[in-house]
Amino acid sequence: MRPSGRNLGDIRAISIETGVTKHAEGSCLIKMGDTHVLCTATIEDKAPSFLKGSGLGWVTAEYGMLPRATNSRNRREAAAGKQSGRTQEIQRLIGRSLRAGVDRSALGERQIVVDCDVLQADGGTRCASITGGWVALRLAVNKLLAARLIVSDPILDHVAAISCGIYAGQPVADLDYAEDSEAGVDGNFILTGSGRLVEVQMSAEGATFSRAQMTELLDLAEAGIAKLVAAQKAAVA
Amino acid sequence: MRPSGRNLGDIRAISIETGVTKHAEGSCLIKMGDTHVLCTATIEDKAPSFLKGSGLGWVTAEYGMLPRATNSRNRREAAAGKQSGRTQEIQRLIGRSLRAGVDRSALGERQIVVDCDVLQADGGTRCASITGGWVALRLAVNKLLAARLIVSDPILDHVAAISCGIYAGQPVADLDYAEDSEAGVDGNFILTGSGRLVEVQMSAEGATFSRAQMTELLDLAEAGIAKLVAAQKAAVA
Amino acid sequence: MRPSGRNLGDIRAISIETGVTKHAEGSCLIKMGDTHVLCTATIEDKAPSFLKGSGLGWVTAEYGMLPRATNSRNRREAAAGKQSGRTQEIQRLIGRSLRAGVDRSALGERQIVVDCDVLQADGGTRCASITGGWVALRLAVNKLLAARLIVSDPILDHVAAISCGIYAGQPVADLDYAEDSEAGVDGNFILTGSGRLVEVQMSAEGATFSRAQMTELLDLAEAGIAKLVAAQKAAVA
Amino acid sequence: MRPSGRNLGDIRAISIETGVTKHAEGSCLIKMGDTHVLCTATIEDKAPSFLKGSGLGWVTAEYGMLPRATNSRNRREAAAGKQSGRTQEIQRLIGRSLRAGVDRSALGERQIVVDCDVLQADGGTRCASITGGWVALRLAVNKLLAARLIVSDPILDHVAAISCGIYAGQPVADLDYAEDSEAGVDGNFILTGSGRLVEVQMSAEGATFSRAQMTELLDLAEAGIAKLVAAQKAAVA
Amino acid sequence: MRPSGRNLGDIRAISIETGVTKHAEGSCLIKMGDTHVLCTATIEDKAPSFLKGSGLGWVTAEYGMLPRATNSRNRREAAAGKQSGRTQEIQRLIGRSLRAGVDRSALGERQIVVDCDVLQADGGTRCASITGGWVALRLAVNKLLAARLIVSDPILDHVAAISCGIYAGQPVADLDYAEDSEAGVDGNFILTGSGRLVEVQMSAEGATFSRAQMTELLDLAEAGIAKLVAAQKAAVA
Amino acid sequence: MRPSGRNLGDIRAISIETGVTKHAEGSCLIKMGDTHVLCTATIEDKAPSFLKGSGLGWVTAEYGMLPRATNSRNRREAAAGKQSGRTQEIQRLIGRSLRAGVDRSALGERQIVVDCDVLQADGGTRCASITGGWVALRLAVNKLLAARLIVSDPILDHVAAISCGIYAGQPVADLDYAEDSEAGVDGNFILTGSGRLVEVQMSAEGATFSRAQMTELLDLAEAGIAKLVAAQKAAVA
Repeated sequence: MRPSGRNLGDIRAISIETGVTKHAEGSCLIKMGDTHVLCTATIEDKAPSFLKGSGLGWVTAEYGMLPRATNSRNRREAAAGKQSGRTQEIQRLIGRSLRAGVDRSALGERQIVVDCDVLQADGGTRCASITGGWVALRLAVNKLLAARLIVSDPILDHVAAISCGIYAGQPVADLDYAEDSEAGVDGNFILTGSGRLVEVQMSAEGATFSRAQMTELLDLAEAGIAKLVAAQKAAVA
Repeated sequence: MRPSGRNLGDIRAISIETGVTKHAEGSCLIKMGDTHVLCTATIEDKAPSFLKGSGLGWVTAEYGMLPRATNSRNRREAAAGKQSGRTQEIQRLIGRSLRAGVDRSALGERQIVVDCDVLQADGGTRCASITGGWVALRLAVNKLLAARLIVSDPILDHVAAISCGIYAGQPVADLDYAEDSEAGVDGNFILTGSGRLVEVQMSAEGATFSRAQMTELLDLAEAGIAKLVAAQKAAVA
Repeated sequence: MRPSGRNLGDIRAISIETGVTKHAEGSCLIKMGDTHVLCTATIEDKAPSFLKGSGLGWVTAEYGMLPRATNSRNRREAAAGKQSGRTQEIQRLIGRSLRAGVDRSALGERQIVVDCDVLQADGGTRCASITGGWVALRLAVNKLLAARLIVSDPILDHVAAISCGIYAGQPVADLDYAEDSEAGVDGNFILTGSGRLVEVQMSAEGATFSRAQMTELLDLAEAGIAKLVAAQKAAVA
Repeated sequence: MRPSGRNLGDIRAISIETGVTKHAEGSCLIKMGDTHVLCTATIEDKAPSFLKGSGLGWVTAEYGMLPRATNSRNRREAAAGKQSGRTQEIQRLIGRSLRAGVDRSALGERQIVVDCDVLQADGGTRCASITGGWVALRLAVNKLLAARLIVSDPILDHVAAISCGIYAGQPVADLDYAEDSEAGVDGNFILTGSGRLVEVQMSAEGATFSRAQMTELLDLAEAGIAKLVAAQKAAVA
Repeated sequence: MRPSGRNLGDIRAISIETGVTKHAEGSCLIKMGDTHVLCTATIEDKAPSFLKGSGLGWVTAEYGMLPRATNSRNRREAAAGKQSGRTQEIQRLIGRSLRAGVDRSALGERQIVVDCDVLQADGGTRCASITGGWVALRLAVNKLLAARLIVSDPILDHVAAISCGIYAGQPVADLDYAEDSEAGVDGNFILTGSGRLVEVQMSAEGATFSRAQMTELLDLAEAGIAKLVAAQKAAVA
Repeated sequence: MRPSGRNLGDIRAISIETGVTKHAEGSCLIKMGDTHVLCTATIEDKAPSFLKGSGLGWVTAEYGMLPRATNSRNRREAAAGKQSGRTQEIQRLIGRSLRAGVDRSALGERQIVVDCDVLQADGGTRCASITGGWVALRLAVNKLLAARLIVSDPILDHVAAISCGIYAGQPVADLDYAEDSEAGVDGNFILTGSGRLVEVQMSAEGATFSRAQMTELLDLAEAGIAKLVAAQKAAVA
């Protein structure tokens, strides 16, 4: 009954290719089905000014979508002269989620910027950005460790994300665009490798939902995240 | 153990004064303790262009904070030349939440703009904006009904919002600023008058949480929302 | 013959409530009839950079209007991405007027920012902002004196403002919106408590005026300002 | 005692050269001493949208200053990405002043845009812009009359402007930069050819003034305007 | 003597993979050595408004670079709020070059937007964008022909681009970043498949060049373009 | 056969008046026929930050056009809130061209800003800006030498520019607007006084050209530049 023929709890085929750009300290191209996101992590020697003297580091993220990543062309945000509210909301989410898995004290007073650029979109771009962004971050931190610029690993745990929603009355995992555009209730679930919750965002456009539905979606999310974390492990091995 | 001396589940004193501006079709000044938000609802004869010919109406929201609503002065967004990512995220949330309680078909092809301007902030401004914004919206719709511009009531149910979080290891309801700035886990819960969920946003800054904690916060939210809905009812009676 | 039934020289009912926000160093809500302006004064430890090393302080102002302060909703300036020419003109006027009553040497190298936000507009918002802004400034300076951060009072005199114009061929004081939108000649008169002139701005939209009319308006202004200064005195007593 | 050696009521040498650009419908280069402003008037077939169907025309103005018109280079406003508050205040004043001398009904539903660009500045640029802008406007309207696009002359009277202020304790006419930067009280007086007042703006930076001083400045202004109007007449003859 | 070990006239390994995104009407990923550009062509039913009623179509281009496409991270232009002068110059060049190979009458009143986004940069990104952009354009036009939306082929000829410059005193073809950052003279040569010139841009940063050097670079460019056109032919076959 | 009646290789009447503003360190008003550009050079004590400690100076340029410099009025860029891509492209070209004639080491760590403002346009404004900009630069550098702030002359050679193109099938020099708007191929040639090439930009809008045509245009350019350099020499003598 899902447009893709998937079962309710099936996530899409996942592929994470690392080392895809020669310049970035960490990088990967993550594909969740037809959603493709290029993630790079850049290490900067300086932390933001509000952390000066604190001994703490920072992880932040920026998100973008190529104009023709979608079915009809979107106006380029650089040409429009500003990032949309949606873009800002997403990149704030990515940064907050990744920071939840980092010991900022062990990172020291430096900043890692994770750029997530959507090359092709088919739903779930923010979740793919978090899952792929963690891989880029992990690889960049590995360079810091290898260069002995930091001594203890600041990465506390995996962080991965999945969207689950109510489609045609049923709870489904990892919505693609065909489902996402129809779903009345849609949630993003960000969890750690050990299954702790980092962020839960459930919203309904012109609809409402029950606690029972919320629980069902959370169950689907936990199962999906386990597969994503396994893919992350394989990618950075 | 809460800075305000409140019990874990206590919400702050709530006051909703209606009809506070002579120009707006609906208005109220909502006070949740020391958080004061002026909410106005403006009826516009035209729906946004993407709804042209659809027969559907729209409810949207804008959010602002006076520069000295907070303990230290914030730069005026009009002077800065743009709304922050935080502002945009909040006003998108308010609009989405209010729309969940509206039958856009019964509203007809018109738009209601709900402006929420924070005169004084002490935590929970987005939740107060939703709770107060609903009152302004209700009053504006009453005018449409009284003028027989619409025949059936487009308001489906109350919509109200509360923040709950983990403060000093304990789940607490309706965080004030002193708690909010310390809480590792913080959630916004938007519910209808009948207890359906509209939006759940739980996030952790540099921390994680368990499903059990999530459940505890949701329980607190349901109890708090009941009190807020009662206050809305009294205000619009 | 005035829409409000007032006599030619009558000013509207004036109310100045102080201490209306818990965060600002000085604050008041001034009401000139249906024109309501929230004024806050913020003390900043640093003067603007062009005063560095001069020993002089600075007083500046910002002005804003809530979107639905007026009869039809105005676009939020933060959303438009810039302050209008009108807004900038008004806030420059408020700052310049307040500085005329301040000994910037006695203030020392610090800045006081006076924010004037119009909650409800019915004509004369810039004048109410100056009159109320002075009260907020006075209260903030009182805190500096009480804390012995400054030793001599930098406030030289009261500063208050009134608009007077030619309505239906007659000189009238303190125009409300109904008069202001019809008046061919309109002036803003800013005076000190001792009756000295600080700023005079008379302009005609599509009309001209004589020196005799100018004198009549100035006479009305002097009488009105005396009442405003009395209200200021009562408010800060 | 004036830096230039002028007597108190002397205005600077005035020169108005017309027809200085081949494209504009009306143009002049006005020189008030070392203040040089290029004024052009452009006729547009459409009035602004707020006048649609009203039968009324519009006159508006824009003002700019070349980056090195002044003693030290100012940042180009186009590069800064916005017009300063000062620029907007000035161009609003120019437009309002010119409209006071125009019968907008006789002009018909068209717009005339007067551009005033300061090539070299030595004080009094806004006044020179008004005086020169009127000449450009007059010449453009002459073209409309000559082409029989309008039948009755919409120009009601001359409009000219002069700044007068208190310099070294004395009232002086037509301040140059050396005086303007020192003067505590400074006014702009815009009058018609028949001596009616169009706009009076008197302000004091960190000072105040008396009604007697105001009268003295107005007397100087009337005498100066007479000379400016004579120069306008000679220029457009 | 070239850092890459290439001979003076050697161009880098070229790869053009077509059909790389599922949404765009035409697309390719072009790799000139380590310079990788994703090119998409979007067909829009409407031509720009300045062509309305002309019967002519339009081809335009936009250019962007991912923040970490380069050795150190560049600020995202969408976050900066504007496209740099360099970006605008490049995208104007791409559009102008592609239009030189198009019969806009045969295209009809529609627009094709070619987006060129640099995933990884190593010099020559604007040239790779033109060469790859032509492939995306060719594929999109093929769709129009296949759908019989147009009857005659609007593509007149291939258009390809190469940079050549003086490096270490020698003329070299297809500069990579190591060469480009050192070259005193640098040119971009855009030619058609039949060897006609479309655009020549030669510039020297802090240096000058002779006509003889110009001729040498042009000879190199002609040879290089022939190879690029062959690669285009293979890609679209 | 040229609209102006000129022979193919004729350039327009050239006039360069120096010392036209009292504030700038160097200035001229250059007229190439009806194209009039006011050029000023401003000396700034500081070099841009990227040169700090390098011992090298910088020459940069800004370009603007008065709104009514052209046949129909263009929107003022300051009002539009940004410089167009065309403006940025032109000012980058002017700066790059002028730097080619300067020994930045002899200039020392200071910056010279050349502002080129078009008062009246009739084609070839960027070329006139370069030719006139060089004169302003030369005069400003003379002041540095006269004041012994620098000891050796940083000006290496003259820099001048001319546009040549194919009009009605014939190569013509120094295109005016009537020709420029019709020409299919158009080039800008920037040369030094000794005939070295600084920059060549040839482009075709919807057309292509041959190497033989390129050679013809270059021949015309060399002849035209010789006359421009002679005019520069006369102006700064």
